[in-house]
Amino acid sequence: MNPSHRTADAGFCRIDPPSIKALTFDMQGSLLDFYGTIVDAGAAVIGNRDLHLDWTDVLDRWRKGYRAQLDAILAGTMPWQSTDRIYRSALDGLLENVDGASALSTSDRDTLSAAWSSLKPWPDTRPGLLRLRERFKLSTLSNGSMASIVNIVKMQDLPFDCVLTAELVDSSKPDPKVYALAQKSLGVRADEILMVACHKYDLAAAKKFGFKVAFIPRPLEFGPKGRTDGGAEAYFDAMAPSLTGLADMLCR
Amino acid sequence: MNPSHRTADAGFCRIDPPSIKALTFDMQGSLLDFYGTIVDAGAAVIGNRDLHLDWTDVLDRWRKGYRAQLDAILAGTMPWQSTDRIYRSALDGLLENVDGASALSTSDRDTLSAAWSSLKPWPDTRPGLLRLRERFKLSTLSNGSMASIVNIVKMQDLPFDCVLTAELVDSSKPDPKVYALAQKSLGVRADEILMVACHKYDLAAAKKFGFKVAFIPRPLEFGPKGRTDGGAEAYFDAMAPSLTGLADMLCR
Repeated sequence: MNPSHRTADAGFCRIDPPSIKALTFDMQGSLLDFYGTIVDAGAAVIGNRDLHLDWTDVLDRWRKGYRAQLDAILAGTMPWQSTDRIYRSALDGLLENVDGASALSTSDRDTLSAAWSSLKPWPDTRPGLLRLRERFKLSTLSNGSMASIVNIVKMQDLPFDCVLTAELVDSSKPDPKVYALAQKSLGVRADEILMVACHKYDLAAAKKFGFKVAFIPRPLEFGPKGRTDGGAEAYFDAMAPSLTGLADMLCR
Repeated sequence: MNPSHRTADAGFCRIDPPSIKALTFDMQGSLLDFYGTIVDAGAAVIGNRDLHLDWTDVLDRWRKGYRAQLDAILAGTMPWQSTDRIYRSALDGLLENVDGASALSTSDRDTLSAAWSSLKPWPDTRPGLLRLRERFKLSTLSNGSMASIVNIVKMQDLPFDCVLTAELVDSSKPDPKVYALAQKSLGVRADEILMVACHKYDLAAAKKFGFKVAFIPRPLEFGPKGRTDGGAEAYFDAMAPSLTGLADMLCR
């Protein structure tokens, strides 16, 4: 069976669990549901005003605008900024082209942008982490700011051993410096680390750095009408429909 | 009453707890008992060989040799090295002048040095952290390497929200960059952070950076015969005989 034809809920594991010492996790999208969180924050901000936003479109463009700024920083065409600031400026950029969005005040936009610092986990996130933590060192490895990820991890009581973000090396994934930070901080070999994410660019870069990689598709990342790429790739070492599914594979 | 004449077990608190959002902790000595851990590791390494080391003297000189190398790095006269490597090279330096220590092989020395990556907490450390974490964000802020502190925090199940070490900014306390790392990563104002330590140089630097500071004397830091400075200073914002004592003051 060709992996590219597997469906999103198929799973496989080509990893010998004892060969892994630590797991690093992408956060936004992979462990955290930004769509649900931002839609709720948006509904609260809009209140009973007659303003209807297409959140699938807004979130899709917001993430693309954010990624474009991260890429500009990586390319050296923009000075380094925290992702908290990037989210805020990317929001202004996208709302210029959204009907009726001029009704959103600076304070409304600050509130919406701040929701990225209180993202809610997917239902399987905490139960999966709790089981995985019994066996492995667990670390975040996020492009989100330290302040936002520390805040989310504390608010949601997510059982990590360590919070690491790209901000600590003034960069962002897929820069190899970010994976190097994880390897050094966790004190293990690259091939003893399993990177877990729903984004292929992240897993491809981690794999190139020497990590093992596990794909958790998140078909609802951009909401029920959003589009995501959930197909398996030949370079995946594992694929599971959820974090609890991954724990089933690794904590046998 | 002049604070400099208070005894080590006296405590006071000039902090309004709601004004504090996060606590940062020195680890080696302040929360972790390196003397007990290293003496145990030394006894295991020596086994039944007829070799008697004065551990109070060895530990005192080991920490001084380590500190001298950290200071040389801060002064720019030595290139940056991880504290794991510094401990190892400082051990060789001090054992040159210890009778009988030539019997300690490279492997013995590696084992002794590695004990700094599995230091045990003081008895009040974990109970104190558990209570403090209900109310505040808790982070390490150590000169130890990330790998060693992550390892200890996991092995001992110490309930931190975040592991931060000076290694993340290629420096060591009392460099202001280390306190700046904590402030940025925790996402709060400097005066909303309480630095907790048994070392005055650390608290003095944190205070200068704008943190509040709490002193926890550790009279046994260098063992029952070791000497420590446990007197209060005018710039302390709080002083408590233990971490549970600090929790009594801050979690009222």
